[in-house]
Amino acid sequence: MNLKEMSREQLESFYKSTLQEYENCKARGLHLDMSRGKPGREQLDLSMDLLNMHIDPSETNMDGVEARNYGELMGLPAARRLFAELLGVKFEQVFAGGSASLTLMYDLIAKAYTHGLLHSEKPWSKLDKVKFLCPAPGYDRHFTISQSFGMEMITIPMTEDGPDMDMVEQLVTDKDVKGMWCVPKYSNPNGVIYSDRTVERIANLKPAAPDFTLIWDNAYCVHEFDGDFVPFKNILEECEKAGNPDMVFEFASTSKITFPGAGIACFACSTANMDYMKKLLNAQVISYDKLNHLRHVLYFKNAQGVIDHMKKHAAVMKPKFDTVLRFLDTEIAPLGIASWHRPKGGYFVSLYVMNGCAKRVHALCKDAGVVMTGAGATYPYKNDPNDSNLRIAPSFPPLDELEKAMQVLCVCIKLAAAEKLLGI
Amino acid sequence: MNLKEMSREQLESFYKSTLQEYENCKARGLHLDMSRGKPGREQLDLSMDLLNMHIDPSETNMDGVEARNYGELMGLPAARRLFAELLGVKFEQVFAGGSASLTLMYDLIAKAYTHGLLHSEKPWSKLDKVKFLCPAPGYDRHFTISQSFGMEMITIPMTEDGPDMDMVEQLVTDKDVKGMWCVPKYSNPNGVIYSDRTVERIANLKPAAPDFTLIWDNAYCVHEFDGDFVPFKNILEECEKAGNPDMVFEFASTSKITFPGAGIACFACSTANMDYMKKLLNAQVISYDKLNHLRHVLYFKNAQGVIDHMKKHAAVMKPKFDTVLRFLDTEIAPLGIASWHRPKGGYFVSLYVMNGCAKRVHALCKDAGVVMTGAGATYPYKNDPNDSNLRIAPSFPPLDELEKAMQVLCVCIKLAAAEKLLGI
Repeated sequence: MNLKEMSREQLESFYKSTLQEYENCKARGLHLDMSRGKPGREQLDLSMDLLNMHIDPSETNMDGVEARNYGELMGLPAARRLFAELLGVKFEQVFAGGSASLTLMYDLIAKAYTHGLLHSEKPWSKLDKVKFLCPAPGYDRHFTISQSFGMEMITIPMTEDGPDMDMVEQLVTDKDVKGMWCVPKYSNPNGVIYSDRTVERIANLKPAAPDFTLIWDNAYCVHEFDGDFVPFKNILEECEKAGNPDMVFEFASTSKITFPGAGIACFACSTANMDYMKKLLNAQVISYDKLNHLRHVLYFKNAQGVIDHMKKHAAVMKPKFDTVLRFLDTEIAPLGIASWHRPKGGYFVSLYVMNGCAKRVHALCKDAGVVMTGAGATYPYKNDPNDSNLRIAPSFPPLDELEKAMQVLCVCIKLAAAEKLLGI
Repeated sequence: MNLKEMSREQLESFYKSTLQEYENCKARGLHLDMSRGKPGREQLDLSMDLLNMHIDPSETNMDGVEARNYGELMGLPAARRLFAELLGVKFEQVFAGGSASLTLMYDLIAKAYTHGLLHSEKPWSKLDKVKFLCPAPGYDRHFTISQSFGMEMITIPMTEDGPDMDMVEQLVTDKDVKGMWCVPKYSNPNGVIYSDRTVERIANLKPAAPDFTLIWDNAYCVHEFDGDFVPFKNILEECEKAGNPDMVFEFASTSKITFPGAGIACFACSTANMDYMKKLLNAQVISYDKLNHLRHVLYFKNAQGVIDHMKKHAAVMKPKFDTVLRFLDTEIAPLGIASWHRPKGGYFVSLYVMNGCAKRVHALCKDAGVVMTGAGATYPYKNDPNDSNLRIAPSFPPLDELEKAMQVLCVCIKLAAAEKLLGI
């Protein structure tokens, strides 16, 4: 029965029995973590052959580049080819870097501040104000970067098709608006794939700032866990067609393909941007870890090798997402007190509890030994205006622990809703 | 016979025969590279067991940290312990990072510009002027970083004991002087070890700028190729004793121990600096490549393991340095037209040809197929006031090629000197 249709008496009875359930949960002394999009142990085990790959000295020189020595700023050519194939971009548009795309994004923003980007009139550190568009709910670490640099973050609501483009088109007419964070495929946390029309509208933006930059974080480019690989528009090509070739930097990594924080990462951009970035990067790095590039290339061979490997991840991930949805569908749906997304890829289920209840649900979970991503973390300044969104990250706990955690979460959702409706 | 004591007739005859020698060199169509401090192939082969180390899933969790997953910003504790032991600093003072100490140095400077350092009154990007002390000849990539950020570089002459400390002590009374580049052991390129007295004077500096920072690049901390490991003063401790605990960041890496650009790097600093840096780094990185940390830890076990490994490098390096010195001692010393250092560690022989001749020698070598580090590259703005210093990097070419390259270099030194003395 829908909680909102209950009489006060029914509600009080529901509250009492739920509170008892909650006390029972607490008594179990759980220590479960659903806070971060970390692959679980089974997923780490999938890539042990990569970690233990035997490489003969005769294999370390590829395309005339010795992977064991200094040199080749843009990375091992074969690793650049692999990323180019995965993202559908051109070889010369790809820079293969270290083990984290997040660091490449941070470094791009840092260079915008210290040196300016290709079309900047001056370094951003010399500006009175820098505004950045933040589709939300979004990835907390993007917002942390913006906040670290003192940007003014503007929250853009997320729709089923991606960011609210009417709002974006309006806001980019402000010359202080310097860019936008985007997770275009299986967005963190809603799991939304930007629609073709949204991607086109983004590529065709006419920003007032000449150095307006899309941070196109394609973190989940091949991360389907339900169904086959879904082809996706090439943002570099779309921007070029729209006359905005230098407006975007795309990022990807193998952190959730091989090893988190120990995979390989890349960025892709126009050749004009690349020429500019190479000059700046030349002061920062001689070359990133080309042996890790080599390991990945020898292991995967090509994009198909990556996509085949992702099927193994899917086999681990799908049961976990099914479990989350089964609990929500069974325990919560009939009560009408929350809604959630049903993603086919990525790492999260985005849950919307009753307005004003997300922090309470988080606190209740914590007290019962279940750590969730902080309520509000998916919004700029950790400020969810509705206090409604919670990010469920089911990948890390084993299936049996996940079930326990979901039990607790469902009880907490119910309890918080009852409290709210009763005015407790 | 000393060239400067020759009659004009003798000199002309010397010039003629040297020119003939030079033409013979050119006719050989060589393609040799003595430009960079890159390990040679034999050295890369020394660490193949590291590259091909088998790691069992049971070994990836160390000190409760799973090396295959995200987390532990400061790096694998065991890797931090290894660096702490190598540098003689405390565990809590060490941050284990990615594959390049150069990048860690760049990032430190970048953060000084974007956020300021612990004791900065404001970010350096907000200052009209930032001056930096550059002992020279020094490492060209340090100067490239300074130049990239638009610093005003001040050249400090290098003595046999390190930087000219009278000059340094005087200059740091200028509040715009924000730091100094130091390669304290086997300095690049002179191969000088800073004396204890110099280290003490550095630690006891009283800079006007509250955020004056030593970039202590201990690149060659265990890189003896002639004789046993030479213990070296702990700059962190010296600065602490002097009441300047936060004045220094020390850097090191295994680039010239295992694989260049694919080893592991660290910085070490006071705990106050570390707390400050961790807050900033938290926005840039989740964790660096802990699997590479793990590989290095399992391979070396402890500092003694590293020092033992360096003996293998020494066995490859010493014959190369001996060759360089043999050629210079035999071919050049009797002529009195150049001087050079005789290092016991590091990667370079620093050569001083007659004033005004370094660029000419470099060009002559290049035309004869021998690439040297650019003349002047070892000075700020690539400006060697005497046009005299050349950096010989003997590690990369095999011994037989090195001999050919040294033959050519000696002929070029002679030819340039004769040209100069004859006024050609």
